[in-house]
Order: sequence, then structure tokens, then C-alpha cells
Amino acid sequence: MVSETGWTLHPDRALPSDPVVRPIAREILAATATLPIVSMHGHVEAEVLARDEPFADPASLLVTPDHYLVRMLVSQGVPHDALGVPRHDRPGVVAAPREVWRTFATHWPLFRGTPTRYWMEHVLVEVFGLDEKPSAQSADRLFDLLSERLDKPDFRPLALFDRFGIEVLATTDAATATLDDHADLAGRGWGSRIVPTFRPDAVLHVDRPGWRDDVALLAERSGIAIHGYRDLVHALEERRRTFVAAGARATDHGHLSADTTPLTDAEAERIVAAALRGDVTAAAAQAFSGHMLFEMARMSAQDGLVMQLHPGVLRDHDRAVAQLRGPDVGYDIPVVTEYVRALRPLLEAFGHHPNLRLVLFTVDEDTFSRELAPLAGVYPAVRLGAPWWFLDTPDGMRRFREAVTDTAGFANMTGFVDDTRAFCSIPARHDLARRVDAGFLARLVAEHRLDLDEAIETAQDLAYRIPKQAYAVPRSL
Amino acid sequence: MVSETGWTLHPDRALPSDPVVRPIAREILAATATLPIVSMHGHVEAEVLARDEPFADPASLLVTPDHYLVRMLVSQGVPHDALGVPRHDRPGVVAAPREVWRTFATHWPLFRGTPTRYWMEHVLVEVFGLDEKPSAQSADRLFDLLSERLDKPDFRPLALFDRFGIEVLATTDAATATLDDHADLAGRGWGSRIVPTFRPDAVLHVDRPGWRDDVALLAERSGIAIHGYRDLVHALEERRRTFVAAGARATDHGHLSADTTPLTDAEAERIVAAALRGDVTAAAAQAFSGHMLFEMARMSAQDGLVMQLHPGVLRDHDRAVAQLRGPDVGYDIPVVTEYVRALRPLLEAFGHHPNLRLVLFTVDEDTFSRELAPLAGVYPAVRLGAPWWFLDTPDGMRRFREAVTDTAGFANMTGFVDDTRAFCSIPARHDLARRVDAGFLARLVAEHRLDLDEAIETAQDLAYRIPKQAYAVPRSL
Amino acid sequence: MVSETGWTLHPDRALPSDPVVRPIAREILAATATLPIVSMHGHVEAEVLARDEPFADPASLLVTPDHYLVRMLVSQGVPHDALGVPRHDRPGVVAAPREVWRTFATHWPLFRGTPTRYWMEHVLVEVFGLDEKPSAQSADRLFDLLSERLDKPDFRPLALFDRFGIEVLATTDAATATLDDHADLAGRGWGSRIVPTFRPDAVLHVDRPGWRDDVALLAERSGIAIHGYRDLVHALEERRRTFVAAGARATDHGHLSADTTPLTDAEAERIVAAALRGDVTAAAAQAFSGHMLFEMARMSAQDGLVMQLHPGVLRDHDRAVAQLRGPDVGYDIPVVTEYVRALRPLLEAFGHHPNLRLVLFTVDEDTFSRELAPLAGVYPAVRLGAPWWFLDTPDGMRRFREAVTDTAGFANMTGFVDDTRAFCSIPARHDLARRVDAGFLARLVAEHRLDLDEAIETAQDLAYRIPKQAYAVPRSL
Repeated sequence: MVSETGWTLHPDRALPSDPVVRPIAREILAATATLPIVSMHGHVEAEVLARDEPFADPASLLVTPDHYLVRMLVSQGVPHDALGVPRHDRPGVVAAPREVWRTFATHWPLFRGTPTRYWMEHVLVEVFGLDEKPSAQSADRLFDLLSERLDKPDFRPLALFDRFGIEVLATTDAATATLDDHADLAGRGWGSRIVPTFRPDAVLHVDRPGWRDDVALLAERSGIAIHGYRDLVHALEERRRTFVAAGARATDHGHLSADTTPLTDAEAERIVAAALRGDVTAAAAQAFSGHMLFEMARMSAQDGLVMQLHPGVLRDHDRAVAQLRGPDVGYDIPVVTEYVRALRPLLEAFGHHPNLRLVLFTVDEDTFSRELAPLAGVYPAVRLGAPWWFLDTPDGMRRFREAVTDTAGFANMTGFVDDTRAFCSIPARHDLARRVDAGFLARLVAEHRLDLDEAIETAQDLAYRIPKQAYAVPRSL
Repeated sequence: MVSETGWTLHPDRALPSDPVVRPIAREILAATATLPIVSMHGHVEAEVLARDEPFADPASLLVTPDHYLVRMLVSQGVPHDALGVPRHDRPGVVAAPREVWRTFATHWPLFRGTPTRYWMEHVLVEVFGLDEKPSAQSADRLFDLLSERLDKPDFRPLALFDRFGIEVLATTDAATATLDDHADLAGRGWGSRIVPTFRPDAVLHVDRPGWRDDVALLAERSGIAIHGYRDLVHALEERRRTFVAAGARATDHGHLSADTTPLTDAEAERIVAAALRGDVTAAAAQAFSGHMLFEMARMSAQDGLVMQLHPGVLRDHDRAVAQLRGPDVGYDIPVVTEYVRALRPLLEAFGHHPNLRLVLFTVDEDTFSRELAPLAGVYPAVRLGAPWWFLDTPDGMRRFREAVTDTAGFANMTGFVDDTRAFCSIPARHDLARRVDAGFLARLVAEHRLDLDEAIETAQDLAYRIPKQAYAVPRSL
Repeated sequence: MVSETGWTLHPDRALPSDPVVRPIAREILAATATLPIVSMHGHVEAEVLARDEPFADPASLLVTPDHYLVRMLVSQGVPHDALGVPRHDRPGVVAAPREVWRTFATHWPLFRGTPTRYWMEHVLVEVFGLDEKPSAQSADRLFDLLSERLDKPDFRPLALFDRFGIEVLATTDAATATLDDHADLAGRGWGSRIVPTFRPDAVLHVDRPGWRDDVALLAERSGIAIHGYRDLVHALEERRRTFVAAGARATDHGHLSADTTPLTDAEAERIVAAALRGDVTAAAAQAFSGHMLFEMARMSAQDGLVMQLHPGVLRDHDRAVAQLRGPDVGYDIPVVTEYVRALRPLLEAFGHHPNLRLVLFTVDEDTFSRELAPLAGVYPAVRLGAPWWFLDTPDGMRRFREAVTDTAGFANMTGFVDDTRAFCSIPARHDLARRVDAGFLARLVAEHRLDLDEAIETAQDLAYRIPKQAYAVPRSL
């Protein structure tokens, strides 16, 4: 990938090598090249966009917050301190940005064969115009070059937003968020392009350490005093109305299990009362979180917010690391996830509701053909989100297409979502997804299972039309 | 796929695109092209063949009974009514055949990338000679063309049977079936080509709503009064004798779990007594169904009927739809299936019995390499059926071959079974399976893991010799 | 594969057929061709090497002890007796070597598409120089040719060891082994090339029939009287010291579950006391085996022995066969295996310990992307072993690379281990693994996801540098 004149990306990267398939893939890819980016599920913070200040430095932009990257380096013995990941006990002890960057650059070969390598190449070459690969030798020069770029107006967040061709981007926001940054952005004309997403996890998992504080804040934000379960529901409904008014299209739910079994109101009241007293059991908390997914579906059927469910990740596998460093530092590990029985209560109640759209994600690829495609392939409410997290890779996306298309077709998908907090990697991720889809569709054409014109239309659907449509269900407001 | 002169199927469809592999695959495929169809597991009704009347209309032949097709349209918001699927509350309300066909034709693009599209193209082009794809524009013309064809003698069931090159076809018949249609067919010389299959599910699941009625009918058909468990066993043995006499080669068992743990006779008597009184528990019913699989193996070891087991599908996921429309309208969803511990009692007892053949199917592809191939790769009684239902697709069949051949080889397979009630799609399905096998074998040749002559012989084995042999175990009658 | 002048192996065997990928794969493979074999996990017996006598005959060398081969023949109705597998009731009844070989040769076509076929071709052609394939016709001639070869000095174990280019080979040895053969070999200068591995399974599963005898032997070997749990631990620690002194690099653990939940010392004492009395429950035994994995990690963090864990195989599925024939005759079947919650206690305690290396194997490929890659991709102590047993095949190894590299990269692997008791197949197995890796890496190059020089370096890492480094962690002795 290093040409004689510098570092460039090959135009055919991530396309199938098969000499019959590649030219077809190229043609399909070309038909999506100029489509805008629709990024309906991500973790870029509205505050960063609203402030629109220059990014601080290359390390805190590209290295430290990227948990894909951090976990790989940690797995090979690099301490979190050396990567700038803050620690609660001694905040000042972590390495300085230039050191962090140098550590990353020195370990560049570790990323061979990984999506981090693929995305980072795109970021460094396409976004920042670097002409040399990271290494111990190049580290300082690249750090200086990147720092210089970051100081320029062209590299401020909103300038990059435009340059990336993002038509609309959804942030992720706690149920207790003020949405001030969104209001600020809307006031400056960005309201239709940057929208919030309602993520109430913190108040739905009633055995979380900080739950009572979050509920107090929820009461404050919603203006509804919360003395029990019904109050909690009303406060959530109120906040959903605020999110809808601020342009939100969707909710997002990260649960360990996909369980959606409803409780009686009396049971729910008892659990919330126990939680407010601070003596709820883990089993009760888990039952309550399943009940609240059912409730969220009920509310979505009313207010039209698309409901996104991301189950099956055991967070903070090493609790000592979590205590020292906080969440999102690499210790989230997928577990076996069951969807069929878990979602039955929700789907029997709302699976044919014309105003519900339930988007399912997974990090357990074993459910692709067995559970997810059959569910999406019959319930009108269900759509499959893009392969998520550990599966958001060239081979993972290919396996997803191969396993679900048979039963669910293309129309029961949401198209690609980048799910990233790494702002500069957004174009890289969408570009990669388009390449993988082009490759998959090209194979169908080469095997005479699809006509070329159909493949081109489908590629455009997946890249642009389907995500726009998937997150814009009719609202009954 | 639309040539200038009309709509044709590409001769290389579903063969690998790799330019080294394709010519080899073509050569292998050619060696199976003229082999007859052996269809040892399907759901075409004997009555249709015995009556041999013209099919009523294109919609009730090709659209309404095809649950693959119905579920896809339903998932995109098309109501069952519009597809002609009958409802119990208002039987007359569903759409007329021409409307149903129009709805299907209009939604043709939904099937891109699915096996329904692949099979339907074959049916419309090869069986019916259509020259135009389904669409809103072509719908009426195609409906008329199809209707015209269906009126001709050449398109009556038995004429098609011959034209399709079916050497033998097994139907699926309840334990309470009269087998009158089979007798009728046998009387007209079709006895060796159309054989029944013994499917006792209805009387083995003792908590089914209609169970007592079915048991009463079983008593009537068998001539054995059923007052308890031993009577039930005797009645089943009697009926199996009748099926064997009518040419049956196999039994078929659809259970939620693959459990085969035997009960004591006393336990079994207690459960049947409770069921006859109408107060059996779900747990007891499930234990009994596992016990009866063990009993079925015992009987197969005596009468030589091949035992087919299809576990792991949660039927009627949406119970309201099932109540309104009945079974088989798209709401059957696979669940995690365990075979190793579940089958241990049966296999320890009968796994080396020279007169038992147990054919295992799955809709849980996660068991391919972990459980199914290792079991089939050691127990003489076990064979693997074709990848089933949601896995009966070009990519599903390829993954099956890639995952099981290593450990089970080719000889521990049954070859392809079409498992279909869509009579006109039988040639399409067998043709597709032969193409996928040709592609898999051609890759082994291209990778120098198999010689071409071996690949050709293996392709013929899989298409013809192995299914014939798999369903013709020696009988000790 | 039969050329006109005899039987040869194609130089491109097992390389991808894609005409763009194959030449790249060839170039990558060539760069590993002359690297020595590092075989850090296998089941060749030290005694065979120490005695260094001619192998007895072709059947007892190549057929009878190979459970891959035996299970396939048994699955097609060949009795164990005909394969020379001894039985406890009538030891003399099994077939003579020439008969065994004839049975194998006659059934040669059964192995089409299997790794047994692939390895055996390599053994017969490359190691023994045969010029004709096994068949009923060739059986006797091949038996004679092989017998003749085996009589020659060049075919004695240590001569083959050298000819195979094995740099170092680890055997597997019970905790109660004398290690006399290793001492003998060391005395003759082979100490650094043939090293023992500490496998204490027999004494960690306290409900095994022979457990008390094994514990008595352990006491004898260690010189520590074992009256309870603490004694058992001390005896194991003492034996580990002996193994380390004898050059051992690793321990090996075959458990049904990956559970590592520690018990209190009091609980552990109670269980061992019950076991010594002979009335331990299965549940207590299982809890104890999980506890002992935790203990083994603690010891490894002290003495630096790499800890290898092989969970998830249900041994001796047919207990009657096991009783008659003993273990390892084909009835070991994989089951669903959970790693994430099971390993949490061990990893929270030792996952960042600089002196622990935990190598995980699996026969449940469903855990590749969901559990194993994420665990190896963050915990410094964890490495992934090669795809194991039923997955140690061209397609299994390819699926492994495709599923784990994304998240774990190459550096979190151990490289290939052959895990075989079939001494003559060691070069075949390493050669095949190198070919599969060359094919995988070549595809990354062809898809412009890796540069060719990186791919070549990575192939060499995987074949040689990584296994050497993986089994040579710093020791704190």
C-alpha cells in the first residue's frame, strides 16, 4: 500500500480478488460512491459538534478513546497508562499525548489483518493526507503533521462533518440529557442533520450503583417527581416527548439479555420501591429490565421512535480494571444470546403494530441464520441492524450477508450503522461497508443469481435509501 | 437473466464464479444432469397425485401454500388476507387468486438474493415456459398464461411427475392416515414410485389440544382400543405395519427437543393416563415425547423404517396468528438445539444396531461441526440429512458441506431431500442442490484435494445412489 | 493426484484456487518451507522415541491408533475388531496387522474430502515413498512395501524425527509419570528437543474410577503423603518442579467445562476427603475440577509453565464401547462450551499476571468470534491455540483465521500445534497448516488489506516464531 510516491489506498481494497467478481464489484461500488452518509447510530458526542473547537491532539482523538485499538495493545502487554487511559486513583499519571502516539505507532504491526488497521489507514491517508506509515521512526513526524492539521479550520468537527458528506448523524444521549447541545446546533441550522437518540439504560437497570442519582436527575429533567414505578414511566414518556421534539428518530437499549417478559404493574411497583430503598436483588433488577423493554416497545408504538436493541455483551469482564479505569476500556465480552423466546412477549404484543420498528443487533453470529433472519423475515416490525462491534469487519459483514439474506432478504435490513465514537473513522467505516456489500452483490451477479441492474439498485438501497427509510417510520403523534 | 429473446436461466447459475473452479464444476454437474430425482422426504399430498386433477389456479398452486414466500411478503407489511391465506373467523374474506398473484408479482424485487427467487425463476421458466418476469405490469398476462397451461393435460400432477423425472417420491402421512390414496395409486401401478412416510407427531405430543381426538382416530384405524400407554404403543406398532405394507420407507419426527430419555413403563402409563383424563402437564408431555423417540428407535430397529428426526423449531411463535390462520404460515422459528446429550440414550441403546438408520436434520447450523458431524462420523446408525428449511439455500448448503465433510465424509449423508409441499419446485430444488455440490466438489479438485473422477462419482452418489441406499436399509420383517 | 509416473502430491495442494490469490499464496508458502517444525503440543509417547526401535508394522503405526480413521470406518459399519482395536474381554480376537491394513485400504474412498485422506496421502507419498493408492488390489503390495521400509534404520523414530525437521517436540505426560524416558533422551543429548508436558487430569477429576490409585501413585512419585487437599496441592507443586527441571514448558488440561470458580480451602478439603473415602458426588467433583483450574493458574503464575486448556469434549459417548475398548476409539463428541463466565474468576485473578500464559483451545467453533477472540484480544495472559481436533482441517483452519483475526490479530495466537499421536503425520499437519495460512494471508494481500512483505513475515511468525515464543514465557524460578 506504500507506492513509490507515498502512502495511498488501493482503489480495489476490500473487494473480492476473484477476477470475475472484482470488475462487477467495482461497477456496483461506483454507483454508491457519491451517496451521502446516513449515520443513524453512533456515539459521537453532540458537545464536540456544538463546540466545534479544534481537536486537542492526535492521541486523544485517534488512540485513547478507541477501545478496539486500546484492547489490542493491552492484550500484548501495553499498560493502559501508556495509552493515556485515565485512572481514578491517580489521574495525572498517564502518558502524555506524544508518548501515547509513539506507543501506538511503534506497535502498528500488531494490527495486521484487523479492521482497526483498515480504518486507521483510511483516516491517516484520506482524512489527514499522511504519506508514511506509523512506526517508531515516523511517530514524531506524524504526530507533528497531525497536530498541524488539527489546528486548521478545515479540521474542525463541523468542517469535517461537511467534508465527510454526512447527511444526517444520530448521537446517543442519556434519558437525562439536557439536549442543550442539540438545541444549540438546531439554532444554527444543523437540527435536521444532527439528531439525538434516547438511551435510557442507566435508569432501566435498577441495580446499578448510581441508579438513584440518575432517577433523581430524571425527575428533575422531566419535571415529574418519581416515587414509584408509574412515576418512572411517566417521566420516561415525558422525556421521550422532549427527544421527539428535538428531532430524535430512535431509542437505543443495551441489555445483557433480550428478555421482554412483562411484569404486572404491582410487581413493577414492588421492584422500583425496593430499588428506591436501595435493596433490590439482581434477579428482580433483571426481570425489571426485561419488563421495561416491553414498555419501551409500547411507547415506541405510540410515539414512533424506532427501537434499537443491542443485547448480549457482558460489560466490564475484569471488575478491577473497571473500578480503576471505568467502562469502555476493552473488557466487554459477548455472551450467548437468545432472541426467539426472549422477544416473544414483545413480538406477540407489538410485532405487527404499524407504528413499531424494532432493530435487532447482535455480537453472537451464531444467531444470524437460526434466530435473527427468521424473526426479521416474518414480523413486520423487525429489522436487522448491521453486524455489530466485533462483527463489523470485512469478513464479519460478509458472513452476515451470506447468513441472513436467504431468509430475510435485503428489505428487512437497516443498512449500515457505524456505531462509532471515532468521528474521523466514519467515512472509512461506511466506505468499507459499501465495499463488502458490493463484493457480496457482485458474487450473486457472477453466479447468475441476480441481475447487474438489480445489484446496483440494491447497493444503493443498502447504502442510502434503506437506512433513511428504516429510521423514518410514520409517527402517530 | 433476461436475454433479448425472453427470460432464460443461465446454464452456469449457482456455480462458483472462480474461473478455475467453474469449468470443473460444469463437468461435474453434467455427470448428474440426467439422473432421476429421488425425493425421499417431502410434503406433497398423496391426494393431489391420486386425484390427478388440474391444479386450480396459479395463486393457490404457487403463492398461498408457500410459507417461505408468504413470510417474506408479510414481513414487509403485506397482510395474510392479501395472499389468500385462509382465516378461521371469516373464511371468505381473503383475496381472490388473481389478486393474490398480482400482489406477489408486484413485490418480486423483495425476493432478491433469496432461494424463493431462485426456485421460482426455475418454476416459471422451466416448468411453465414464461418469458417475462413477474411485475405489476406483467402480473395479469402471466396469470392468464399460467392458467392456460394449468388447464392442459401436460400440467396435471402425474404428467408433471413423469416430466420432472421423479423416480420415487415419499409423502408425509399422519399415523392416523387411511393411506387410501396410496392404495389407489398402487392399484394404478404407482406403488413403487409414490410411498407414504409415517409421521406420528400428533399422537406423541400428549398436550396438544386435539390429542384425544387423534388418539381416538388412531384406535379406530388400528383396531386397537387405547386405554393406556401399552395400548398406544401397540396401536402405533400396528399402524407402522400397515405403513410398511403400503411401501413406507421411513418415519418422520418433528420435536422441539432432540431428547430421547426413556421413561419406565409405569411413568409412561401415568402420563398417558393423565393425558387421557385431559390434565397432563407440559413437563410430563415433553418427557413423554422424548421417551417416545426412544420407543420409535426401538420399533425402527425391528421393522426397518428409517427414522428421521427434525428437532429445534419453535412452532407458531405468534400464537394469535396461529389461532386465526393455523400452522405453517411463517411463524416457525428455529431455536438452539442440543443433540449430543439428548441423543445419548437412544444411541447407546441402538446406535450400533444393524437395522436402525437415524437421519438427523437441523435448522441450527451451529451444530454442524460441533455435534452432527462427530455423531454421524462414528455411530453406524446415524446419517445426516440435507441442510433443512432456512438452510436449504445456495450458501447454506455450501456451509453445510464445508462444515461436516471433514468429520463425517460423504458416505454418512443421505443426499438431498427437498422437504417441500411446492410440487412444481421439486426439480428446481434438486437442480440447485446438485449445482452446489458440483461447486463444492470442484473446489476440492481445484485445490488438489480430490481427483476429478472421484468428484464425479461423489456427485452422482450424492444425487442418486446415496439417497436410494439411505432409505433402503435391510428389513428384518 | 496419480501422475502417469506414479503417485505424487501436487505442489499447490490446499492453496486457494483463485488465480489471483494462488501465486501470492505460493510465494508466501515458499518463505516458510524450510522453517523447522516446532511441535509444542502432541501425543507422541516419549517411550517410543527413547526406545528408538523400528515400528512394528504398518497397521499398528498408521491405522489402529488413529481415532480419526477408526471412527470413520466404524461409522460405515466396520467393526473395531477388524481394525485391531483391542478389547478387554477377549484380547486376542482382533484382526492381524495385514488384515487391518487390507480393511483400511479397501475403504480408502470413504476418506474423500476429509483431512485423514489429506494427511495419509502425505505420509504414504512423502514419508514412505509409495507410488500407488490404497485399494483392495494394492493392499498387500503396499503392506509389504511399508513393512520393508519400517525395517530400515532410516525409518526408526529418531531418524524420522531428524528427517521431519522437528526442532522441538513436547510430549504429554501424566502427573504421575516417571519421566525416565525423558531423562534417558536428555542423557543422549535430546533434552532440548524432546520435552515433557504436565497433564494432571487423572488426579484432578476426583470421581474417576481409578482416582485413588492415581493419587497413591502421585504420593509415591512426589514423596508426599496425601491425606487431604493441601497434601494434594503440595504433591502437584512438587511434581511440577520435577517437570520444569525436566524441561517442560507447559501443562495441559482436558476438562468438560471451562469453569474456574475457586472454592474455599475448607470446601476443597471436604471434597478431597469424600473422594478419598470413595463417596464423592459428581457435582462436587465438577466443582473441584473448576477449582483446580484456578489453582493451576496460580501455580503457572509462579513456575511459568504455560497453561493449556482443552474444554468441551464429552468423552466416551457410548459407555458400553468405552467399557469394552477403553478411551480414544472415536466416541468423544464436542458439546457447547462457555468461556466468558467460566474463565472470569481465573482471568480476574491472573489475567494480567506477567508470568501467566493461558492457551485456549476449542472444538466449538461458535465461540471463535463471540468469546475466544474478544478474550484473547484484551487479556495479556490469553493466547488462542490452533483450531483443535475436528476443526484441524483445511476449511476449519480457514474459518478460524477468518473469525478470530479481526479481533485478536495474529500476535495473540500460539501458531499451529499438531496435537497428534500419529508421529508420521506431523510433517503433513504442519505443512497443511502453513498452506492454509498462506492462502488466508494471500487473500488479504489480494484484497489490499495487507502488504506482501507483511504477509510473508506473518506466515513465518505463525509457523515458527510465535509458537517458540508462546511456549517460552519468562520464568520466575
